[in-house]
Amino acid sequence: MKNTATLLISCPDRKGLVATIAEFLYRHNANILHADQHQDSENNLFLMRVEWDLHDFNLNPDEFHQQFEPIANEFQMKWRLALSSHRPKIAIFVSRYDHCLADLLYRHQAGELHCDIPLIVSNHADNKWLADAYRIPFQHIEVHKDAKAEAEKDQLALLRHHHIDLVILARYMQVLSPDFIRHYPSRIINIHHSFLPAFHGAKPYHRAFERGVKLIGATSHYVTETLDDGPIIEQDVSRISHRDALEDLIQKGADLEKIVLSRAVRWHIENRVLVYANKTVVFD
Amino acid sequence: MKNTATLLISCPDRKGLVATIAEFLYRHNANILHADQHQDSENNLFLMRVEWDLHDFNLNPDEFHQQFEPIANEFQMKWRLALSSHRPKIAIFVSRYDHCLADLLYRHQAGELHCDIPLIVSNHADNKWLADAYRIPFQHIEVHKDAKAEAEKDQLALLRHHHIDLVILARYMQVLSPDFIRHYPSRIINIHHSFLPAFHGAKPYHRAFERGVKLIGATSHYVTETLDDGPIIEQDVSRISHRDALEDLIQKGADLEKIVLSRAVRWHIENRVLVYANKTVVFD
Amino acid sequence: MKNTATLLISCPDRKGLVATIAEFLYRHNANILHADQHQDSENNLFLMRVEWDLHDFNLNPDEFHQQFEPIANEFQMKWRLALSSHRPKIAIFVSRYDHCLADLLYRHQAGELHCDIPLIVSNHADNKWLADAYRIPFQHIEVHKDAKAEAEKDQLALLRHHHIDLVILARYMQVLSPDFIRHYPSRIINIHHSFLPAFHGAKPYHRAFERGVKLIGATSHYVTETLDDGPIIEQDVSRISHRDALEDLIQKGADLEKIVLSRAVRWHIENRVLVYANKTVVFD
Amino acid sequence: MKNTATLLISCPDRKGLVATIAEFLYRHNANILHADQHQDSENNLFLMRVEWDLHDFNLNPDEFHQQFEPIANEFQMKWRLALSSHRPKIAIFVSRYDHCLADLLYRHQAGELHCDIPLIVSNHADNKWLADAYRIPFQHIEVHKDAKAEAEKDQLALLRHHHIDLVILARYMQVLSPDFIRHYPSRIINIHHSFLPAFHGAKPYHRAFERGVKLIGATSHYVTETLDDGPIIEQDVSRISHRDALEDLIQKGADLEKIVLSRAVRWHIENRVLVYANKTVVFD
Repeated sequence: MKNTATLLISCPDRKGLVATIAEFLYRHNANILHADQHQDSENNLFLMRVEWDLHDFNLNPDEFHQQFEPIANEFQMKWRLALSSHRPKIAIFVSRYDHCLADLLYRHQAGELHCDIPLIVSNHADNKWLADAYRIPFQHIEVHKDAKAEAEKDQLALLRHHHIDLVILARYMQVLSPDFIRHYPSRIINIHHSFLPAFHGAKPYHRAFERGVKLIGATSHYVTETLDDGPIIEQDVSRISHRDALEDLIQKGADLEKIVLSRAVRWHIENRVLVYANKTVVFD
Repeated sequence: MKNTATLLISCPDRKGLVATIAEFLYRHNANILHADQHQDSENNLFLMRVEWDLHDFNLNPDEFHQQFEPIANEFQMKWRLALSSHRPKIAIFVSRYDHCLADLLYRHQAGELHCDIPLIVSNHADNKWLADAYRIPFQHIEVHKDAKAEAEKDQLALLRHHHIDLVILARYMQVLSPDFIRHYPSRIINIHHSFLPAFHGAKPYHRAFERGVKLIGATSHYVTETLDDGPIIEQDVSRISHRDALEDLIQKGADLEKIVLSRAVRWHIENRVLVYANKTVVFD
Repeated sequence: MKNTATLLISCPDRKGLVATIAEFLYRHNANILHADQHQDSENNLFLMRVEWDLHDFNLNPDEFHQQFEPIANEFQMKWRLALSSHRPKIAIFVSRYDHCLADLLYRHQAGELHCDIPLIVSNHADNKWLADAYRIPFQHIEVHKDAKAEAEKDQLALLRHHHIDLVILARYMQVLSPDFIRHYPSRIINIHHSFLPAFHGAKPYHRAFERGVKLIGATSHYVTETLDDGPIIEQDVSRISHRDALEDLIQKGADLEKIVLSRAVRWHIENRVLVYANKTVVFD
Repeated sequence: MKNTATLLISCPDRKGLVATIAEFLYRHNANILHADQHQDSENNLFLMRVEWDLHDFNLNPDEFHQQFEPIANEFQMKWRLALSSHRPKIAIFVSRYDHCLADLLYRHQAGELHCDIPLIVSNHADNKWLADAYRIPFQHIEVHKDAKAEAEKDQLALLRHHHIDLVILARYMQVLSPDFIRHYPSRIINIHHSFLPAFHGAKPYHRAFERGVKLIGATSHYVTETLDDGPIIEQDVSRISHRDALEDLIQKGADLEKIVLSRAVRWHIENRVLVYANKTVVFD
């Protein structure tokens, strides 16, 4: 079992950045396992992800914060330290379509997703059996047209109670309010069943079918207050032909959605995703 | 060298269609090489492509028309007979970007495209050398902002003079007028440098870059009076990452555009494409 | 719920084949939903799949056999009639890796696979919980190095008892004997975790990693007596890079294996696969 | 026009490597544009590529060598400094198939490949017209079965005369001798028309067709003394079906070969490829 720390940095690009960070880590005896950086020349931004083994490292997290703070201030860094020993807590929101839920639960059980899932929330009771099979608590919160705010209040209470770090909308068919979203900035991941920005909004497969596209897509993105407009984490497509009826699009699309959502979730959990300028850098 | 006939049919779906057509071809001793059909249940449409060897076939084209006409009328068919001995005449329109032009000229010269290219039209003189290298006549027709209609008049005269069957817009950066387009319904193929309907209109790579998509695309389609809205013939995509600057998108996109446009052109030439309901069936 | 018949034919190519078949179906009032055919000129073979609605059809299966037999004989057809009302019975064989099993069980439960699964057989007890979750009977048959024949005897008895039509090897890590295989010709589907014929045999991911390939693959095929050499039904690949360690290959490969195996199984169940010359035609 | 230096390093992995290199570059006022590194834990190797703007850099190449040498020695580095101002000299070897040649010449002319091409060598005269169109010198050196050594002697003399840095085998159908290959270690790039290691050796499309694979591939690799066994730089695949005859495989494959070879050549020219353990790292 690996025991590592990951440092994520974004700041204005400047000479000496890499030298300063590398020297700091070396001085404290870090054994670097992965390091990746990106210069966005258009925005004059420097973005970095570095992961090291904690075995010989001579700072504990508190000491790290104290000693790294001056460097961070000097370079105006936004930064975050993540420890592999901390398993993030994830809530899955789902409606009736169960393919993404089943896929995430299987991957979690198989050890692909290093997180805890203390909570599944659904506006329908249909998928309780699946939650039960994987022994994950399932909360049925109905969402009535005229009482959305109350439902969200209950949902938020549950998220707080379980100290949730990340919310996954696994084909959750309700639009969340701006207020809800503001509680979890860059911490709600949605799967949209089209190749955004094509076919944003409702019924994308129907519209793709009608338009006669030759590929269908899926997009996972962080949720922002503008519908289907948040930073894209991952996309993929699948070829279709005139032989595919609407229901074939939906079935082929389901396979895409599973893959695309699970990649985005894994990358988020592994602290590979940095958001800037309504885009993402995904460090691989 | 094969000597075949291809029959393309679309009509309301009805029992007995295949039996009637197959019996007709059999009676006249056709040796069927390929046959493909498609039922669009939503529109109650039957679409068919059948290709046969003319070696033993006992009807010439005129006789075919005469004898097939009653069947066609009975089933309300739209139909077309194409002979492999007829090489369609193609005009390529191009502006400054030359990658699609170079690709099409190479493929034509290599025997991949069974057509004649008696004419390249450009609003710039830059690509004359390329036309010369492949010995294709090149016409430089400037398009002035205030004199588009005159330029189109000259272009149309050239197309008529050369008996052009198909116009390829190989990154031709001028919008054609509805009047021009009406002269060549389902006979102008454009390459758009995005995954339509995403990023229709101008500067798609710039907008894709800004939106932070993870795949870029290209779309070839028949030109209709509504910009970038015609029946899609082919699409494909290519993966990009945060490491790709705008110019990388443009370069990777160029490779996509070449492939996607050349496929569409080849399929059109091989009489594989049927248009209906602003979509295409591409028989493979 | 559709109620259809599917006719699969392979025979020497000859004029009049399509006309004869189409006329026969028309005479008995078949409403054709899909028809696809393929001429293999190299082997002078004609292959066809035609599916029709049984609603107005005026022959029952027995009558069909009686009346179609003379035609079949005349054209030396191998043929098969499959009814959508008949759900094939499938047994899944699995060892410790559970990703393909979990995927198939989910798809079956979700209605993607029109079959019954009365039996899961494993040489390990590990995956019993998964079978239980989906309420499918699970049989643990240990396979001892020196007693393979006995294990196979038990397996074959179970297959017979349950009237199994198709065996799926969902990462079953035991090599089946030629004798076993002869009981189910073209009715055992395996998933091999490489892009065959590359890396046939043991430990393909290890060897792919060592060779430094840039894509990994998966292949589903019918099992024949020569290891990993049977007719290929489906293949797909996934891009990897130097950043991927062996365990990343295995994880990315698992996603490929699931998709590729499930496609092959679905196509087999839907009577889309015809085997000839150690290849397959997959009618889409 | 950018004016940069690129440093490529491989050495045993050790703490302090990144800090030392970054500090060295910072001390000499390098403005780092891209940096990428890779730790191969299995082989305990550290591999790095770093590119910086030379504008403010205060060492010329000679000084760099002098001052970096002690660091390189301390860490047992294999290293190489490449300047963007140096355009590598490339020779293209070709036989009759011209698609890769035409593609490379177009890309070179379009500015995609930052290199000079002073020489095309062919054992046939067929493609002289293409070389002429792009104004590249063309040398026809016949290769007789019994006089291969002499032909290679002439070829090597030409390569020396033109100070060739890289040889591209653009579907050159002669096997080079080990002696020839030893003159250009990791500096001969071949395109093989299969997904290696599948179908190495002769006639891969024929064998792919016979085996009934569902995807065809192409592989570009450095040439070593063992046929088709050198370090793989890039691979890609394309879907085929039973409808594709052998000639369709060859045509679809040609498009793959062009793309795959041109990527490998561009990456080599941009100093993105590091070879180790018969594999490559391609820094992106």
